[in-house]
Amino acid sequence: MHRNLLWLFVTAMALILTLILTPAAAADDLTESYRDTAGQILGAAMTDVEGWEKLTYLTTAVGHRLSGSPQLEEAIDWAHARMAAEGLETRLQPVMVPHWVRGEESLHVVSPRPRELAMLGLGGSVGTPEEGIEAPVVVVSDFDELDALGREAVEGKVVVYAVPWVGYSGTVRYRGAGASRAAALGAVAALVRSATGLSVSSPHTGSLHYDEEQPKIPAAAITVEDADWFARMKALGQEVTVRLKMDAETLDDAESANVIAEIRGRELPGEVVVMGGHFDSWDVGQGAHDDGASCIAAWQALKILRSLGLQPRRTLRVVLWTNEENGLRGGKAYGEALGEDVSTHVAAIEMDGGVERPVGFGFGLAETDSEGGDPVYEAAYAKLQAIGKLLDGIDAGEIQRGGGGADIGPLMRKGVPGLGLRTVGEHYFDWHHTRADTLDKVDLQDFRKAVAMLGVMGYVLADAPERLVAAPAEEPPNE
Amino acid sequence: MHRNLLWLFVTAMALILTLILTPAAAADDLTESYRDTAGQILGAAMTDVEGWEKLTYLTTAVGHRLSGSPQLEEAIDWAHARMAAEGLETRLQPVMVPHWVRGEESLHVVSPRPRELAMLGLGGSVGTPEEGIEAPVVVVSDFDELDALGREAVEGKVVVYAVPWVGYSGTVRYRGAGASRAAALGAVAALVRSATGLSVSSPHTGSLHYDEEQPKIPAAAITVEDADWFARMKALGQEVTVRLKMDAETLDDAESANVIAEIRGRELPGEVVVMGGHFDSWDVGQGAHDDGASCIAAWQALKILRSLGLQPRRTLRVVLWTNEENGLRGGKAYGEALGEDVSTHVAAIEMDGGVERPVGFGFGLAETDSEGGDPVYEAAYAKLQAIGKLLDGIDAGEIQRGGGGADIGPLMRKGVPGLGLRTVGEHYFDWHHTRADTLDKVDLQDFRKAVAMLGVMGYVLADAPERLVAAPAEEPPNE
Repeated sequence: MHRNLLWLFVTAMALILTLILTPAAAADDLTESYRDTAGQILGAAMTDVEGWEKLTYLTTAVGHRLSGSPQLEEAIDWAHARMAAEGLETRLQPVMVPHWVRGEESLHVVSPRPRELAMLGLGGSVGTPEEGIEAPVVVVSDFDELDALGREAVEGKVVVYAVPWVGYSGTVRYRGAGASRAAALGAVAALVRSATGLSVSSPHTGSLHYDEEQPKIPAAAITVEDADWFARMKALGQEVTVRLKMDAETLDDAESANVIAEIRGRELPGEVVVMGGHFDSWDVGQGAHDDGASCIAAWQALKILRSLGLQPRRTLRVVLWTNEENGLRGGKAYGEALGEDVSTHVAAIEMDGGVERPVGFGFGLAETDSEGGDPVYEAAYAKLQAIGKLLDGIDAGEIQRGGGGADIGPLMRKGVPGLGLRTVGEHYFDWHHTRADTLDKVDLQDFRKAVAMLGVMGYVLADAPERLVAAPAEEPPNE
Repeated sequence: MHRNLLWLFVTAMALILTLILTPAAAADDLTESYRDTAGQILGAAMTDVEGWEKLTYLTTAVGHRLSGSPQLEEAIDWAHARMAAEGLETRLQPVMVPHWVRGEESLHVVSPRPRELAMLGLGGSVGTPEEGIEAPVVVVSDFDELDALGREAVEGKVVVYAVPWVGYSGTVRYRGAGASRAAALGAVAALVRSATGLSVSSPHTGSLHYDEEQPKIPAAAITVEDADWFARMKALGQEVTVRLKMDAETLDDAESANVIAEIRGRELPGEVVVMGGHFDSWDVGQGAHDDGASCIAAWQALKILRSLGLQPRRTLRVVLWTNEENGLRGGKAYGEALGEDVSTHVAAIEMDGGVERPVGFGFGLAETDSEGGDPVYEAAYAKLQAIGKLLDGIDAGEIQRGGGGADIGPLMRKGVPGLGLRTVGEHYFDWHHTRADTLDKVDLQDFRKAVAMLGVMGYVLADAPERLVAAPAEEPPNE
């Protein structure tokens, strides 16, 4: 017991000293040794016009880019060709993607007073019969209320989820699971309040997930205004009948691709820092915040490094992942192509939270507790904080504990250190998955900051004398 | 000369003393003598539930109420019957109103990449031929740019006004005059950026005004997002062709009415304080902020006075004016029915700026300069400030110089003192004339404050020993 305590004490002291001394020293080194280079990158990014010009072209001339659409493939071909013209090493990684099409769709109140409602079918929804589905609604404020009503009250009805806004993750679950939960009780369709805190009669689309055990019924997003109206009609005791028409269908998988561009490492080309966003979007708006601006920011960061003649020690790679929105096939394909050994990948950076005013990065590392004083995590965290200091001049260097992203998830789960670019996150879900995710919502200076952040973080991680985290080969995973 | 100066001095002193002493004394009297009564009204209003219940019914079961629509007449009949049931003296004042109907409408980009655009035809617009109007667009950022382009560039085109937001009054002029200014150069249709500072792909309708000298071409509002997109396509040098289809038409005038309810004065029933809002709305949304909530607030204020057994010295009248939005026929008819002698009317209070958090009233008086130390204006202003003090407890007693409203304009121009209820005015134009002018945008406490304000201000003006401004008979107008 005494020996155990002593051992514990020595270990703890060693850990504390490690935390206090080693990372801090490494941190200071990173800040100091990259100050001039970071200044070059930052200066170029914060005065850059080419990135904005690319983003303008993408959002204006191409527009939205759902998987399977000609627009997505046009965007992919455009980016690939232009990256090559810029002298970046580039290639396409073929990926088969789901091909859901919205088709014509409409929602009308039939009685008591006919009117058309703003709506957007949910991604992946089945369509209705050609004549539509006409049925009375049953309005619920949550799943508990639905289940309490039971089959007798729900069968043959259109379930309206007039749910409260409790933040995105709390409200969006009705979009994901609402159709099948309603179908389980015999509902013929589901209408879901849009997952947003701001509405000017603006429906928000996004994926639903069918429970394979239940009949697949069509589902659409309605506006905050109409969800509230349905709830008030219920409170007034007025029965409402609606007619939903949706031509939506899922076609055979379509050909698509991840767009890859890189600057090969000058010393360790086989070691890679990968960064990017997803190039696909929903089929409304322009896919500006989600996630076109992120893709262009990562690409332009790479372009600026090349223009500055900065070739890092390791390979710095940009990936514009395909099909994040309704399949994640791009992120999965990239991860699968690496196989089980992802030790080639030093770090992965994803940006998929819009380009509001950026504040820093969140950092996640599998098999470590980001809050628990894990020495491996803490050492890397200190290094990232040191790199973050290089971005203090644009208020964008804060490193938060925990982070990552959907497309780099497959890498992170295998142990690749992951970073997610973070913003103030004030308005992202106002525009998210709507016709209003458009370039007018993006601020040029915020966008430039993102370019600077990805340029500095990507370059330093790729160029630093040591990897962010020692390779798995040197320190095998716990399991 | 000396005698003139002496006379000027004496007059000025008298005026200054009048300003300093008399109104202040009268003011203090008003504040003190109505403190208890105001407390009763305020307490009842700030705990009232009946007004909100009425507003809920109006916005939910009836909905929007354009002139000529069955909804407007249903709302009028409902209010009239319910007012009578509440024991208020009530009547309908018949008014013939314009009857414009929107019909089916749509706007598509035909090339280079087909898509449907959110739009709302402008009130009063003519329709298109049944097959629609298909033509290339010409994009301008203001009237100067349009005029500089000239007929050669504009003829046969659809003019897109991608104008900046410079506040409502600055931007809305393109909605009003855009069609005829474009038609003057041979344009076949006009598309106008919605007059708003906030957009989630949300078009705002409202009236246009045709210049009778020019051909009448159809016109519609487009979203901020699409106006920006058109401007960017122009900057990219890409020609855009659109197809506009509008079934809009103006039918024969329809029967409608102002709804009038009152508590007859106990001493001077022939003297009237009138207050209200307009009961009609545009044909989208629920006419909640514009202007249903104001109508119900005025009505509920009167109902509360009656419930409290408060019968003022003079008559306190509520008018729910019809057809403010596209004709002002209700306000005009009310004024015309009085004839030239409006001396029966002690004051008119209008509320037509939404029910955001109210802050007070603006006060206007014809033939006086509200900023210039006019003794008639100042005396009345001091009295209003004294009444305003009774509303300090709900932060709603500020009296601003200048104010009024469209429906009371005909009265004010003939000399009736006019007040407009004022709010913080932060979001009104976000929802104004859209599908999002709905009850979920109205706050119960803000609404209750408006009820309290109209109750206190209306009651004290109707009950005060002296009129707010001496009657024209006692002090004839200057001209």
